[in-house]
Amino acid sequence: MRKIKMGIVGLGRLGMEHARNIAFNIPNAELIAVCSALQEEVDKVQAEWGIPYGYLTYEDMIQNKELEAVAIVSPSPLHVQHIKAGLEAGLHVFTDKPLGVTIEECREAEKAVEAHPDQVFMLGFMRRYDPSYAYAKKLIDEGKIGRPYMAKFASLDPEVNVQGAIKFAPTSGGIFIDMAVHDIDLARWFLEGEVEEVYAMGGAFVHPEFAEFGDSDNACAMMRFDNNSMALFHAGRDAAHGYHVETEIIGEKGSLRIAAEPRKNLCTIFDNTGVVNECSQNFQERFAEAYLLEMREFIDCILEKRQPDITVYDGTKDTEVAFAATKSLKEKAIVKL
Amino acid sequence: MRKIKMGIVGLGRLGMEHARNIAFNIPNAELIAVCSALQEEVDKVQAEWGIPYGYLTYEDMIQNKELEAVAIVSPSPLHVQHIKAGLEAGLHVFTDKPLGVTIEECREAEKAVEAHPDQVFMLGFMRRYDPSYAYAKKLIDEGKIGRPYMAKFASLDPEVNVQGAIKFAPTSGGIFIDMAVHDIDLARWFLEGEVEEVYAMGGAFVHPEFAEFGDSDNACAMMRFDNNSMALFHAGRDAAHGYHVETEIIGEKGSLRIAAEPRKNLCTIFDNTGVVNECSQNFQERFAEAYLLEMREFIDCILEKRQPDITVYDGTKDTEVAFAATKSLKEKAIVKL
Amino acid sequence: MRKIKMGIVGLGRLGMEHARNIAFNIPNAELIAVCSALQEEVDKVQAEWGIPYGYLTYEDMIQNKELEAVAIVSPSPLHVQHIKAGLEAGLHVFTDKPLGVTIEECREAEKAVEAHPDQVFMLGFMRRYDPSYAYAKKLIDEGKIGRPYMAKFASLDPEVNVQGAIKFAPTSGGIFIDMAVHDIDLARWFLEGEVEEVYAMGGAFVHPEFAEFGDSDNACAMMRFDNNSMALFHAGRDAAHGYHVETEIIGEKGSLRIAAEPRKNLCTIFDNTGVVNECSQNFQERFAEAYLLEMREFIDCILEKRQPDITVYDGTKDTEVAFAATKSLKEKAIVKL
Amino acid sequence: MRKIKMGIVGLGRLGMEHARNIAFNIPNAELIAVCSALQEEVDKVQAEWGIPYGYLTYEDMIQNKELEAVAIVSPSPLHVQHIKAGLEAGLHVFTDKPLGVTIEECREAEKAVEAHPDQVFMLGFMRRYDPSYAYAKKLIDEGKIGRPYMAKFASLDPEVNVQGAIKFAPTSGGIFIDMAVHDIDLARWFLEGEVEEVYAMGGAFVHPEFAEFGDSDNACAMMRFDNNSMALFHAGRDAAHGYHVETEIIGEKGSLRIAAEPRKNLCTIFDNTGVVNECSQNFQERFAEAYLLEMREFIDCILEKRQPDITVYDGTKDTEVAFAATKSLKEKAIVKL
Repeated sequence: MRKIKMGIVGLGRLGMEHARNIAFNIPNAELIAVCSALQEEVDKVQAEWGIPYGYLTYEDMIQNKELEAVAIVSPSPLHVQHIKAGLEAGLHVFTDKPLGVTIEECREAEKAVEAHPDQVFMLGFMRRYDPSYAYAKKLIDEGKIGRPYMAKFASLDPEVNVQGAIKFAPTSGGIFIDMAVHDIDLARWFLEGEVEEVYAMGGAFVHPEFAEFGDSDNACAMMRFDNNSMALFHAGRDAAHGYHVETEIIGEKGSLRIAAEPRKNLCTIFDNTGVVNECSQNFQERFAEAYLLEMREFIDCILEKRQPDITVYDGTKDTEVAFAATKSLKEKAIVKL
Repeated sequence: MRKIKMGIVGLGRLGMEHARNIAFNIPNAELIAVCSALQEEVDKVQAEWGIPYGYLTYEDMIQNKELEAVAIVSPSPLHVQHIKAGLEAGLHVFTDKPLGVTIEECREAEKAVEAHPDQVFMLGFMRRYDPSYAYAKKLIDEGKIGRPYMAKFASLDPEVNVQGAIKFAPTSGGIFIDMAVHDIDLARWFLEGEVEEVYAMGGAFVHPEFAEFGDSDNACAMMRFDNNSMALFHAGRDAAHGYHVETEIIGEKGSLRIAAEPRKNLCTIFDNTGVVNECSQNFQERFAEAYLLEMREFIDCILEKRQPDITVYDGTKDTEVAFAATKSLKEKAIVKL
Repeated sequence: MRKIKMGIVGLGRLGMEHARNIAFNIPNAELIAVCSALQEEVDKVQAEWGIPYGYLTYEDMIQNKELEAVAIVSPSPLHVQHIKAGLEAGLHVFTDKPLGVTIEECREAEKAVEAHPDQVFMLGFMRRYDPSYAYAKKLIDEGKIGRPYMAKFASLDPEVNVQGAIKFAPTSGGIFIDMAVHDIDLARWFLEGEVEEVYAMGGAFVHPEFAEFGDSDNACAMMRFDNNSMALFHAGRDAAHGYHVETEIIGEKGSLRIAAEPRKNLCTIFDNTGVVNECSQNFQERFAEAYLLEMREFIDCILEKRQPDITVYDGTKDTEVAFAATKSLKEKAIVKL
Repeated sequence: MRKIKMGIVGLGRLGMEHARNIAFNIPNAELIAVCSALQEEVDKVQAEWGIPYGYLTYEDMIQNKELEAVAIVSPSPLHVQHIKAGLEAGLHVFTDKPLGVTIEECREAEKAVEAHPDQVFMLGFMRRYDPSYAYAKKLIDEGKIGRPYMAKFASLDPEVNVQGAIKFAPTSGGIFIDMAVHDIDLARWFLEGEVEEVYAMGGAFVHPEFAEFGDSDNACAMMRFDNNSMALFHAGRDAAHGYHVETEIIGEKGSLRIAAEPRKNLCTIFDNTGVVNECSQNFQERFAEAYLLEMREFIDCILEKRQPDITVYDGTKDTEVAFAATKSLKEKAIVKL
């Protein structure tokens, strides 16, 4: 069995999730190089997993001639720079979202991808690979609910993690760019249209710290699409019950809901509180399978010499819409795209 | 509009439920007489609701020539005596379950009913009138699940009421006669067969006080029916979460569940406990509509000169099965009927 | 027991629901007069229920000196005229929503109510009396979820009734005035604030007939409130699964959902489709108890000489907001109040 | 990283599930040998996955000196023979359930395991490793529901697979040995007691073919445990909706339910059927993670030189109870252990 030799940059929480999948859970991938600015992170992974190569800079790593592909899980402002260098080094490139932190950066990424049409480029909107979302898409494609004309999204991060989000607020780009961009991508995917007009609203209702950085703890947006459809979004950072991502797609003949109520697992508790379903407190637990399946798709694309459905242009479009929502929220005005 | 003039004996918690329905919620019934051994109960209802006649004995009440029908919600050991006297006085008779506390008593009730074929006699197994059970029966009759060959029952009383049950234990007849008899009636109704063989098991697992009276806080039974079907029963008195009655009917083409998870109302709480559905703590809340609908059926039977589907023989059969289960539990032996 | 003698105008589907509750289900109310422009409706109710007085005009009915109170379920454009005449005739007045069909009319109603401070005036936003909504309000008032800062609403009418809605479209005032006004009232009630700004979007996505009358089959709105809170609304007329009203209130410490998934009753079907919960197809089934409880509150207010929580000013405010949403939708512009 | 070199015997549906986990999803395991009586199965796996060694007999495989451990997924009647030979060859042994097909065989396996105390022996009751069951066990151990005194089980295979079960009926040992043995193991695990007495009932209600082999398509059992607890079991082979394993554990302070309603994934369909959750049709989908986690535990036990919690004695006990239930069902008599 042919194994794709991969390197990864970024060994934070999400980076380790990807690294683990590449190293252990994908038969035809092999993690041969890890890179982080923190020496101890590199040392630890190399020692524990027996990874042959370790690097402190991405530039050093991609010079390793054994490498065939690279996964970019570095800080968002470095994404485009890493994408370009990786492609230029002849590598297949997987990058976690966001594509870039400005529209200009996204355009640069587009050009780099266009310049290397024979290399696989994939953007990590893992929700599209979650079995329940993939199943919903399949049902829609089969006509189960007729033409979808509306979608409703809620993405809620748990209150238990809010301090991390506050710390990250100065550089995150705001709740639409940081969180809702996943739902924006899903909306474009499910509705098969592009956003024409956005109106957004939000506030630091519970944690005023967000307001200091022009960010919100809860925000919502309403979007008109160019194919006679529309979508509602809600992103929040303070869900008392846990991590909660819920989606509804409404079509002419019916509607679909994904994960209407979050659950930690299949164990329900009946006690003097009532009937209780506990919730998970982190997105990795909810989307573990999606993270694995998206990386499998990346490897399969390399082996089968094809490109994944998510393109670099999706990354640009999703970012544009997220910026428009951010602008609308700040200016209290309708934004047209 | 013709109104049936009714009297009621027994003004305890359930008696008041029936009284309220007759007095206020059934257009063509009129509560003209109430009876209780407790003078203050009689006085209170008469004063508050403007009921013309009040009695301290049932014998006195049924001599009231204006009465056309009577509802018996007196203590179980008095049921058969009240049934007989009521029928002999020319009244239509509704009696709450159980029909009687011995099989001999049930046979006496049968004879009394047979001797007055023109008077309506109805036994209060209200669950048959609950909209969800009635709907399940309708689906079965329409062939939705094919022939039903199995049924599973759980009837759980809430722990918050357990002291009342302990106080009642010396005279209740035990958990099968007191509680499971409702499910036994449902089993015979849904499976349309009669019980041939019973094996039961139980214990005072949580509240040893029940054991002092030969009773259990939890018991289960398995029954073979004469038409190639079977049923499982569980009755418990200590549900931490609340009042919980759950039923499953399994057929050749599908199955039905009624009230798989109990809920106080439609409000779900999402807080740091998780996703919580609170439960009701009393059967009146769960079966309020059923109590009303069964009494409406009684009145309709009188007006339309027909007999209800639940017969006096159902009462005898249900009681026989409950006694067989009680015997099986005590003797740790299979009991055949 | 003192019984309030009532009359009702309007014997359509909803009128009959109210009439039935007054006649049969409220101990201290008595329906003595019915009024409809259709002679056969009047005759039928009088004959079947034994109602002494029948009228073809509201003006005739309110001259009946026995009357103490009146319920107005006439066509919406007649509401204010009927309210004024009823109050001037010295009657307590219950009127179904909407208060009026223009803001000017609402102001007239306000003046009429102010001129008769000793008469009870009540507006029929029955959802506030639904046990689950009332329970949610109680939990919020007790601090269960902290300060509520956001609310999300979905009110979906079933596709099976869409032809009726299309027929009604020319005069309904549009989806916000006709349907979402219930949710607007709930939002003001739960969030305890007033709407400052509205942005709405919608379309005749499935049934182009609505577009002919400037109406939508689906519309959504986003509203900013004056107390640092916001709300999202979705109203639709084509739910394939049935009548579906769902509400979420989000607070600092948790959130509440009411009726997240609609269900016809407690019977779940397991068959080769999967696990199926059937839905109800009409609002009367969902809100039967609410209709009864709101009328009980009206009667109790009369007997206890107090005014209900829902005031005439709520009617005006709800209508103003619904008009603002309608304007926003049509003009594709933000509307400030 | 040290990798345990493993072989597997049996490459049927479940064998392939185990093989895939060993080969690809467990970092410190390596699948170096596969064995099946069918040459093409061996060839296929060797070719596709690059497995160095292939065998047609188990006896040949275990002579491979590179092997450290073996997974036995051969037909049940061969289990004990393969266990003994594997242990004698110095290998760590994982075997799928059942331990053996007679009690005598189980005793032989016990002796073999006792004779090789330094080798890991593990029995594949994978449900104990399912995250939801493991979580329930943890909650119980932490005292969340107090002492568990009762458990209720339902294990239903889907109707779509019933022809396979009918074909397997002559040799399966019957529904308790083939299916309910998983629940028997869970009951002993959760209740921490041993079965004293069994009464069982069943029938070929839907598929008379089972009766020809003395088997049932549905059976239930009631069991008394030696520590004042009890359990109810239901196993069925004809669930119209799909694969459905549901468990309830009842304790003094509350109860737990695992998977009360089966679901294929998190996508809910709202269409003119109502609200629909589709179901999975095979156990691999439901227990995929459990199969992986149990094999990980086996490998960890080898590396950490410890024995798993499930012992060879569990296998014997579970089998004894399953045989007792089978005997009870056939003889319509109570069976004591």
